[in-house]
Amino acid sequence: MSIEVIFGKVLRNIREDKKLSQEQLAHLSELDRTYISLLERGKRRPTINTLIALCKPLGLKPSEFLGEIEKELY
Amino acid sequence: MSIEVIFGKVLRNIREDKKLSQEQLAHLSELDRTYISLLERGKRRPTINTLIALCKPLGLKPSEFLGEIEKELY
Repeated sequence: MSIEVIFGKVLRNIREDKKLSQEQLAHLSELDRTYISLLERGKRRPTINTLIALCKPLGLKPSEFLGEIEKELY
Repeated sequence: MSIEVIFGKVLRNIREDKKLSQEQLAHLSELDRTYISLLERGKRRPTINTLIALCKPLGLKPSEFLGEIEKELY
């Protein structure tokens, strides 16, 4: 599984855990909703800037988000 | 300080701690040396794929690298 696909899976899981829609997350992170959909489907490679922007409304630290990805990677 | 500049500072510090040149890190991470120089000068926004590629030869987890950035951010 590619890094982008893992990232998308983790992003969707955390977003759904927080009971946020893509629309709400887009608004809170000041990103475009379609971009969030593309990220969740593993179609884009997010920068660390995007990761940091997403983590604020998701209420976790970027290092914690990466920790979730590492569980799937290593 | 922008996220890219913080990233570059942290990257340079860790690379120098490991006594690696930009050339050696480029070879080991399969990235271009000029790109590493641009990253270290805060001129590029790395993707998480690039972060993960850099962390292998630097001998730390991406979440640990992000933890270093968080120290400067928050």
